[in-house]
Amino acid sequence: MRMRKKKNLIPRLERCADVLIAEPREYRGRFSELFSRNAPLYLEIGAGKGAFMRKMCAREDRDFNYIALEKVPEALIMAMEKAKAENIADALFISEDAALLSEIFSEGEVARIFLNFSDPWPKSRQAKRRLTHENFLKQYKTILAPDGEIVLKTDNPRLFEFSLCEFSKCGFVLKELTLDLHNSKYAEGNCTTEYEDRFVSLGQPIYRVIAAKRA
Amino acid sequence: MRMRKKKNLIPRLERCADVLIAEPREYRGRFSELFSRNAPLYLEIGAGKGAFMRKMCAREDRDFNYIALEKVPEALIMAMEKAKAENIADALFISEDAALLSEIFSEGEVARIFLNFSDPWPKSRQAKRRLTHENFLKQYKTILAPDGEIVLKTDNPRLFEFSLCEFSKCGFVLKELTLDLHNSKYAEGNCTTEYEDRFVSLGQPIYRVIAAKRA
Repeated sequence: MRMRKKKNLIPRLERCADVLIAEPREYRGRFSELFSRNAPLYLEIGAGKGAFMRKMCAREDRDFNYIALEKVPEALIMAMEKAKAENIADALFISEDAALLSEIFSEGEVARIFLNFSDPWPKSRQAKRRLTHENFLKQYKTILAPDGEIVLKTDNPRLFEFSLCEFSKCGFVLKELTLDLHNSKYAEGNCTTEYEDRFVSLGQPIYRVIAAKRA
Repeated sequence: MRMRKKKNLIPRLERCADVLIAEPREYRGRFSELFSRNAPLYLEIGAGKGAFMRKMCAREDRDFNYIALEKVPEALIMAMEKAKAENIADALFISEDAALLSEIFSEGEVARIFLNFSDPWPKSRQAKRRLTHENFLKQYKTILAPDGEIVLKTDNPRLFEFSLCEFSKCGFVLKELTLDLHNSKYAEGNCTTEYEDRFVSLGQPIYRVIAAKRA
């Protein structure tokens, strides 16, 4: 996510220290200690300004702890400040690169991974940067629980095509696949991102799939 | 395929006896004997009036034998008469139901299966009739060679979504997936069906995927 530089970034980040896991490697295998209750851990990779996270965590039927990964400080600060302002419980942030996930989480530690509108990196030579490239998927597979799942949403048809093939190649089982989420039976209960709202208002379809570690 | 009744259907079918395999079960495991050369066997399920078959078999780089399955006699007769008129070699027809495929072909006998614009059977309770329902896929998997593949084309997004999940559930690996075949890198060399030509002229996208038995 490219964003304008934020003023006073450092002091603002400091004021959010209570929701940021500054040294996540120290909690590898025991992230559950950071939350007020024992619950499955949901991980969002590339959380942006955090709208999806706030909606997910405000659900009445919520039964999970939440970690949002965002490496761009200008987005991270907005997501953290809003989460604090709304008093979102059991939702924490990590500022790291997704390529280092398996250093941060232990095997099977994560129940669900969310990839929302990830950068499509459209050129062929950029394929390895896509968050659904098999190099990433192998890491996700490791940190996911045996019944773990990845939930992918995108507006980009080329990224969706690529992702489905990569999921398949890595042995994930595709479920609840839709080429038009907002006009599908899966629309109800869908939490939108800022980007998604804008796209849907333009009448563009949203692609969504769940890639499960096992059938 | 629903079609008008054809006049003189019986005598016309009789005149095509040389391209129809009337008793296919007799050739189970030895279909290669029916062709002039040894080559991988391609099988089209639901060949309609046969345009796809004729284009495939007219390819200069052709290196396969071809069997077209079509259970509707009114379509079958047109496909057979046209194939005969064009002197298509090593291309034969079977008039059977796809549900009986594993009675007709032996294990690993087929190199590639083509499903072109199969009936989407849109209602949930009709799902079992879709040619990509897991009950069919299990049969395809049995008759396909170890490196065998299914090539699916459709204009129906709901059938495409359903098919991708079914392929995935049955352990097929998805390849060369496109949500818009005619505007993709796979457009070149694509053989179209009658139905496809009409659809493309209306500007509608064609969905295509290859489901491979192994990665």
